[in-house]
Amino acid sequence: MPSTDEALRALNHHYQSMPPVATMQLSIAGYDGERLRLHAPLAQHLNDKGNAFGGSLISLLTLASWGLVTMHVQAAGLEADVYVADSEVRYLAPLYADIEAVSQLAEDASWDDFIHMLRTRGRARTTLVAHVPLPDGRIATTCRSRYVAILKS
Amino acid sequence: MPSTDEALRALNHHYQSMPPVATMQLSIAGYDGERLRLHAPLAQHLNDKGNAFGGSLISLLTLASWGLVTMHVQAAGLEADVYVADSEVRYLAPLYADIEAVSQLAEDASWDDFIHMLRTRGRARTTLVAHVPLPDGRIATTCRSRYVAILKS
Repeated sequence: MPSTDEALRALNHHYQSMPPVATMQLSIAGYDGERLRLHAPLAQHLNDKGNAFGGSLISLLTLASWGLVTMHVQAAGLEADVYVADSEVRYLAPLYADIEAVSQLAEDASWDDFIHMLRTRGRARTTLVAHVPLPDGRIATTCRSRYVAILKS
Repeated sequence: MPSTDEALRALNHHYQSMPPVATMQLSIAGYDGERLRLHAPLAQHLNDKGNAFGGSLISLLTLASWGLVTMHVQAAGLEADVYVADSEVRYLAPLYADIEAVSQLAEDASWDDFIHMLRTRGRARTTLVAHVPLPDGRIATTCRSRYVAILKS
């Protein structure tokens, strides 16, 4: 099983190998087992109003949650494809600063249950919540998403 | 008031002037007053599984709905900033072909009501539905989003 540092390097490589992600100037800003934080510079993600493009915000939020699920699958010694199934996004305030997307498990979900289900049934689903903070501590964007993992045969 | 052709050229320029959109190889594939269709090549939007990246799908869906609102605001002779307020996205099936995002007004919404509200109150909200079709006619992704327009002063 890879160390956390190795797993983060592999995750970053995974991100950068996707053409639509390679252009985002995305970096992994932090991971403590519970939360994965991604960063991207505002300049690469400006919309016509001079703030962060909605599509970039949801892309970063999706990648943060996808990455967090992927880290937990790997930490369990499993190999699976991880898909986003659905998302609810709320754009609460415009962001005029670099994008930071922070993902964690939803309050009613459990990594143990998810990994147990994946290991025993080959397929599991879980819910993550992610947000983009504003520099003043308020929230720019929230996202609640379900992810499905399917063991590779 | 610009002609539809002029408005579509302006919309395309608008898209291409946003750094995160300029990398998408997006083009306007059709507009008939009711539906706006955008296209982007799969190669630019691949994920790690060799199909279309979820962030790209929602970005294209968001841009299609944003563009459709913008076209209707302009056709009414108004100038407004258009923001996405929230979105519900469902990823129903993976897409292994170029992305086409098609947007239209939700069944319970009215362009006349939206433009009247924007003209009289300076601010209006409406709901759009958008989808990405699969080559066989089924649906890859759906998105239901609310947009807010605010008159420029």
